[in-house]
Amino acid sequence: MIIRVLGSAAGGGFPQWNCGCPNCQDVRSGHVAVEPRTQDSVAVSADGRAWFLLNASPEVLAQIARTPALHPRAPRHSPIAGIALTNGDLDHVLGLFSLRESTPLQLFATEAVRQGLEERNAIFRTLHRFEGQTTWRSLVADVERPLVFPDGAPSGLRVTACPVPGKLPVHLVGLTPPSPEDNVALRIVDEQTGGVLVYATAVGRVDGAVRRAIAGATVVLFDGSFWSSDELPRLGLGAARAEDMAHQPVGGPGGSLAALADLPIARRVLTHLNNSNPLLRGSSEECASVARAGWEVAHDGMEIEV
Amino acid sequence: MIIRVLGSAAGGGFPQWNCGCPNCQDVRSGHVAVEPRTQDSVAVSADGRAWFLLNASPEVLAQIARTPALHPRAPRHSPIAGIALTNGDLDHVLGLFSLRESTPLQLFATEAVRQGLEERNAIFRTLHRFEGQTTWRSLVADVERPLVFPDGAPSGLRVTACPVPGKLPVHLVGLTPPSPEDNVALRIVDEQTGGVLVYATAVGRVDGAVRRAIAGATVVLFDGSFWSSDELPRLGLGAARAEDMAHQPVGGPGGSLAALADLPIARRVLTHLNNSNPLLRGSSEECASVARAGWEVAHDGMEIEV
Repeated sequence: MIIRVLGSAAGGGFPQWNCGCPNCQDVRSGHVAVEPRTQDSVAVSADGRAWFLLNASPEVLAQIARTPALHPRAPRHSPIAGIALTNGDLDHVLGLFSLRESTPLQLFATEAVRQGLEERNAIFRTLHRFEGQTTWRSLVADVERPLVFPDGAPSGLRVTACPVPGKLPVHLVGLTPPSPEDNVALRIVDEQTGGVLVYATAVGRVDGAVRRAIAGATVVLFDGSFWSSDELPRLGLGAARAEDMAHQPVGGPGGSLAALADLPIARRVLTHLNNSNPLLRGSSEECASVARAGWEVAHDGMEIEV
Repeated sequence: MIIRVLGSAAGGGFPQWNCGCPNCQDVRSGHVAVEPRTQDSVAVSADGRAWFLLNASPEVLAQIARTPALHPRAPRHSPIAGIALTNGDLDHVLGLFSLRESTPLQLFATEAVRQGLEERNAIFRTLHRFEGQTTWRSLVADVERPLVFPDGAPSGLRVTACPVPGKLPVHLVGLTPPSPEDNVALRIVDEQTGGVLVYATAVGRVDGAVRRAIAGATVVLFDGSFWSSDELPRLGLGAARAEDMAHQPVGGPGGSLAALADLPIARRVLTHLNNSNPLLRGSSEECASVARAGWEVAHDGMEIEV
């Protein structure tokens, strides 16, 4: 399985449009220590020809444009065979509305995510302009299913949606009841190589469910949104702590790295980095410390094969 | 008034994600005759410090990132004082949902556009996370109003929404009744210089209303979506004619250029170019012919002062 990181930033991207923090200022001025990142999304493929996106970022058009493997190979065509969603957060679904020019879409999501998206937004009707434009393939908690091609043929990849601690998208709070299927990690298995990717970019807390989802993974792409709980308040960027936004911070004795240290995973990668995160700065002490702990930091365009 | 073209492509952008037409293939391969374009949006400013966006394209984050005048000048700040909308098409409004990280937004739109957006989509609640996050300033057909700053102070610019032939956004067809205020041109006047911009990027037909909206403009940014009616069918890209999508083609005796030839406008610019348009190719005969007729073709980053 080829895994290509299309975007490695948290919601808002890096730089963030309205942020003048040191990280954002430096990336705008082209400082060598930092590089721009688009919002979280990954493409996976068993054969390098047909691809499945994990999440559809608001920047999906730019992500496709700079990834030759995702370019069309006919007057109207896309190598994107389907899109699997981890939750209904806008930074993970907004890109769907940019993928509307007459190519059918196959969407893999839990029923909770589908409802919040399709039934509550008139703009979703743009993805129902013709019969068969959008086909939903339901993900049920902890039940593995094949990632099929649009015609139903197997792709060689299988997916399991594993509920992990998270939250409802902000725009659905108070509108729909919370469900364990609001936020999932995706576990993708390559039938041929046996490689296992666990994609878990919104994790509120490393608990037993998270550990079970990750156990035995060949590679994990994990929630690296915040280094510390009080990152935003300390930089004067807001009052919210990492946990308020349903992200367990990475660093410190109570951080996710410590909580995952004992799990045997061949390759560990942090992604979904918020613009405030010191991990965005390659020269930081925090970067050195995650490297010592055996973790990598994702960047846009990173490619991994398992 | 400074006018900066942030994006000059029609819906889908250039290249378009699922299009393998000669234009899209050439721009992906870096051919010298064509350059990439993001989706239609313009920024205007009376003083070069505070800016108003005309439409919010899906690529608004990238457009802001590459435009230093739109960068924040404090830890949480944006020089974007407001956003005026011409219609509710997704390529003109989707960017609003990328401008959500706690900076208040001021939106200038007709009641028809506001309703279709705010009342029909749960995701709009992300722009109502706190009191005062979104302030609507109503545009009424043919009634001039000041483009105010968020505190109500005048910016030195005034705006008029001029209804022009168009259509409801695809996702609202059959859901809300059509209204003349579904699709407008924006006429922006600089009180100090007297300069007048008319921004009309979705024009189904040049009629009396369009001619009145444009009369006396210093510069017009006009709908250049399609060169000819049968551009898409001829390239094998779809069955729709330009008019089916509510865009009068530019070329030929029945085209918009012929229909506007007699109007005295100092500077005439075609924008909102579809990926199929031969005007995207600087070396084309069509480009030469619009130049002979006194028109320019917009590009991303183009700046005009009036």
